[in-house]
Amino acid sequence: MAGTRPVFYVSDGTGITAETIGHSLLTQFTETRFVTDRISFVDSVERAQEVAAKIREAAVSYGVRPVVINSCMDGDVGAALAESGALMLDVFAPFIEPLEREFQELRQRRIGQAHGIADFDTYHRRINAMNFALTHDDGQSVDYNEADLILVAVSRAGKTPTCVYLALHYGVRAANYPLTEEDLEHDRLPPRLRPYRNKLFGLTIDPVRLQQIRQERRPNSRYAQFETCKREVAAAEMMFRAERISTLSTTHTSIEEIASKVLTTLGIHREMF
Amino acid sequence: MAGTRPVFYVSDGTGITAETIGHSLLTQFTETRFVTDRISFVDSVERAQEVAAKIREAAVSYGVRPVVINSCMDGDVGAALAESGALMLDVFAPFIEPLEREFQELRQRRIGQAHGIADFDTYHRRINAMNFALTHDDGQSVDYNEADLILVAVSRAGKTPTCVYLALHYGVRAANYPLTEEDLEHDRLPPRLRPYRNKLFGLTIDPVRLQQIRQERRPNSRYAQFETCKREVAAAEMMFRAERISTLSTTHTSIEEIASKVLTTLGIHREMF
Repeated sequence: MAGTRPVFYVSDGTGITAETIGHSLLTQFTETRFVTDRISFVDSVERAQEVAAKIREAAVSYGVRPVVINSCMDGDVGAALAESGALMLDVFAPFIEPLEREFQELRQRRIGQAHGIADFDTYHRRINAMNFALTHDDGQSVDYNEADLILVAVSRAGKTPTCVYLALHYGVRAANYPLTEEDLEHDRLPPRLRPYRNKLFGLTIDPVRLQQIRQERRPNSRYAQFETCKREVAAAEMMFRAERISTLSTTHTSIEEIASKVLTTLGIHREMF
Repeated sequence: MAGTRPVFYVSDGTGITAETIGHSLLTQFTETRFVTDRISFVDSVERAQEVAAKIREAAVSYGVRPVVINSCMDGDVGAALAESGALMLDVFAPFIEPLEREFQELRQRRIGQAHGIADFDTYHRRINAMNFALTHDDGQSVDYNEADLILVAVSRAGKTPTCVYLALHYGVRAANYPLTEEDLEHDRLPPRLRPYRNKLFGLTIDPVRLQQIRQERRPNSRYAQFETCKREVAAAEMMFRAERISTLSTTHTSIEEIASKVLTTLGIHREMF
């Protein structure tokens, strides 16, 4: 029970896969506290021996057996890590054999493929989507024809991080339309957006939360007043309803969840990078 | 073995964990072609039955048994998916029992925790890091004191995507210093950067590749000429060497790999979001 458990995500590549699955596993254990460390690019037995020494040190200083979430392809590297005495969980091992049987193909132990560079076309699509999100942030000089989708919301409701996330992870060209005070005086879509109705997704937010965020950004401005936030959010929500625009509240929603819901709702299918 | 194999990433949350591990697994099989689909927010047996029907359709149209990479917590949901007849790989199952035994604690089946919103402080750190990356892009009005690290490179070598990725995924405040022609006339660090030597990381790139990227951005400009690219890259590399700044070539390196190397090299430890 109690105490803090050291967990190491060890990988021969970036460590993203090991950390992603490891983090998902740890969130299921709520009574144990964890201290985590990601160790990337462990691609030789010598490096693995150094890492094993570090893991043994953690065992001593925390007085408890560490856990290793291991995604190294090389069996010798894994064996050297196991010398640390930690609980070893190999991220790929349980799945390889059923997949080899199913595909009638032996897996290739290619290091660092999963988060390496794919091909220049894919890479370009990703970087271009990202540039699109950045140069078209906050509705400046946007060609909405080029956008895969358009997030519509009042200022500081979460549009920008979501657009950038969609670009980085899915290569989706996500544009941004910040609802102005003038837009909010009408309960219809701003004329500029009307031709793109099937690309629109509305974000909303609890006005209390919005006020906190705006207050941090421009303390004591009219923009950050609770009354302003409340009025803008109510007007935006009314417009979304009247125009039947799909909407999501970002108040208790992570960027990943918003991105995932937007893609699902608009029926955009893209592989994750 | 040919043919195309349909693979479904099915999750009760965003599907990020299932897709990350699934993608890592599939990259190890080089002879099979895959068509992948992410199905998120499958949080009821009814929804799982709909998804199972979709999987069965794929089995018919591709004429081969689909694979399901499943990260749903609920056993009944998993059972309903398995009715599809697909090869079911449960992302968490192999690891839960050893962890329960090790921690002497039963896991909680909390849906969508891994990529849900953590707490407002963590979330704020993330968003603030992101705003930092965006407002301090390309060296405009930067307070380098506030930066956790500073990427230094010639224009279009990969600074911006890396800064944004570091902010989004690690909550790291990453600033940007674009080397100007004037900077490159000297082989010493620009004076503005000298106080921050321990935060610096240099990016470099193959001039042929740089020329392609610049050409796409500003066709037939002096900026995009091969001679310009070659001269700038050589001068930057000479400066990095003279000043003993850690450097990485981005030519064949993904954003994830650059980010991971930068953090490892500078000794910055942050959990991934």
